[in-house]
Amino acid sequence: MKKLINAAETVLEDALAGVAAAHPELAVDVANRVITRAVRPTAPKVALVSGGGSGHEPLHGGYVGPGMLDAACPGEVFTSPVPDQMLAAAKAVDTGAGVVFVVKNYTGDVMNFELAAELAAEEGVEVRTVLVNDDVAVEDSTWTAGRRGTGATVLVEKIAGALAERGAPLDEVAALGERVNAASRSFAIALTAATVPAAGKPGFELADDEIEVGVGIHGEPGRRRERLRPARELVAEVVETVLTDHHLTAGDEVIALVNGLGATPLMELYIVFGEVAARLAGHGITVARSLVGNYVTSLDMAGFSLTLAKADGQLLELWDAPVDTPALKRA
Amino acid sequence: MKKLINAAETVLEDALAGVAAAHPELAVDVANRVITRAVRPTAPKVALVSGGGSGHEPLHGGYVGPGMLDAACPGEVFTSPVPDQMLAAAKAVDTGAGVVFVVKNYTGDVMNFELAAELAAEEGVEVRTVLVNDDVAVEDSTWTAGRRGTGATVLVEKIAGALAERGAPLDEVAALGERVNAASRSFAIALTAATVPAAGKPGFELADDEIEVGVGIHGEPGRRRERLRPARELVAEVVETVLTDHHLTAGDEVIALVNGLGATPLMELYIVFGEVAARLAGHGITVARSLVGNYVTSLDMAGFSLTLAKADGQLLELWDAPVDTPALKRA
Repeated sequence: MKKLINAAETVLEDALAGVAAAHPELAVDVANRVITRAVRPTAPKVALVSGGGSGHEPLHGGYVGPGMLDAACPGEVFTSPVPDQMLAAAKAVDTGAGVVFVVKNYTGDVMNFELAAELAAEEGVEVRTVLVNDDVAVEDSTWTAGRRGTGATVLVEKIAGALAERGAPLDEVAALGERVNAASRSFAIALTAATVPAAGKPGFELADDEIEVGVGIHGEPGRRRERLRPARELVAEVVETVLTDHHLTAGDEVIALVNGLGATPLMELYIVFGEVAARLAGHGITVARSLVGNYVTSLDMAGFSLTLAKADGQLLELWDAPVDTPALKRA
Repeated sequence: MKKLINAAETVLEDALAGVAAAHPELAVDVANRVITRAVRPTAPKVALVSGGGSGHEPLHGGYVGPGMLDAACPGEVFTSPVPDQMLAAAKAVDTGAGVVFVVKNYTGDVMNFELAAELAAEEGVEVRTVLVNDDVAVEDSTWTAGRRGTGATVLVEKIAGALAERGAPLDEVAALGERVNAASRSFAIALTAATVPAAGKPGFELADDEIEVGVGIHGEPGRRRERLRPARELVAEVVETVLTDHHLTAGDEVIALVNGLGATPLMELYIVFGEVAARLAGHGITVARSLVGNYVTSLDMAGFSLTLAKADGQLLELWDAPVDTPALKRA
């Protein structure tokens, strides 16, 4: 295992120390493992809180800031944060307008956020939960009942975050988050496996010419293994898989995210994006907005995921709204 | 070789097609291999043009936009662009106020940009060249006479770009670019080698526990190979090496860039940054501004580079100025 770490046991606290040093615009509570905005909103607003295992950076701490999240709760690598973290985060950022939990659909995360919502309610914090389950690869997986939550998380956090920033009420923000999730579908391909520091070796083995089609962001198995093919062929399969599930048709507009899983050069992500745009154009579908880069990673996994969200006027307008976070900025 | 490409021969044109599709705010001339801003400045201003081999994305195309570059010329992977590209770029963006070429110190790049400057002068475009040579690892290297140009390129392009955007004259913009380069020092460590698509195999071999100390962004040899050590120890050596060369002392402020070489998880870069900040604090040196992420990459190389620029009021004020490019944004 080759990693830039001090020790497997201190990966999370050392990374949080770095986030704190790099981002004076964030407040990092290392003891409670909660990241919030250094400057709190002055007027009451619905607060967005997310969290999940570490190893998916910039998710979620990189999306804390005006226009997006109010707080993030990082767990240990590929491990759900605990309810106490989520409760501490909810209490820290609630302005009286309530809190929306954005939760990726993994069994541990779902259970812990549910418990945290109950604890928060007991302390007078009203909570709604938006479950993200956009990955069309498999119905159930290693750590999941139902579909896994992946790239759509960024879209939910950005778009619902923009609405919350404008002062919309709790139920409206939560409903919009659910609408963004329902409008989104994702699919991923891995070229290599990620290595969790505490495990010390890759989570699975792939031959030199082999890929995992439909992989999860913790290395969960996908649909099958096959030979690596040219990017154009891989993208064709990924796009068709997403479109089939999504029922998108000619004339539709999408927000497209081509996401690197951590170890894929940006040059290759642009090659993939070019093929995605061309393939969608062939279907008469327009890419109205896009992101290309590392947004929901899986440590040092090579590969990519595609997320397509069916766009409409409201989603695009909120997508374009100002945001100022470490990983996503727009004036 | 596991890469998301169509064919080694079409990597650059396929990546440019992706850049064009993803960034309507850029104009991509695929035939001439020149990336410019889609919306040109309305008032005359000094134009900044950079370029170099591909495989270092987001360098340079990702830094084209208001507040930074006017044009970028991407060469084939790890190969200098040709004078015709640079000339086409200079002519496309010159408003009559002249052009600054930002050139990383590699023999091919230096020769080709020199020739382009002569050709441009013959066509009435006044050119100044800022040479970037911030890498303290080695004096001469595989492709270089003198020191290699690496992470400081981002700082030169950002800070000189901000001054150009304000309407400063040609000699002043070029002088500031040289001042930023002179204020900057870098040093890099590789955990793995990059694979150039046309070569099909890694540029060098490292054992499972081995690192290259002082590596270049094309995999050029550094100072030595040694065993991988904890991040804190590696950072201590890198910081001390840079400080010794830089003559920084207690009370100094720096702009610090902790840069991933392409395949290093962001979580690890934050761990490295935390150690850098702590080590500098031990010397009484303050990190006034920072960047943590993939800014000057080397395809799929794992590792990091550290760039420290001695800051002052003017540099910080221009660093903070608005910028709107694919890879660097600030309101």
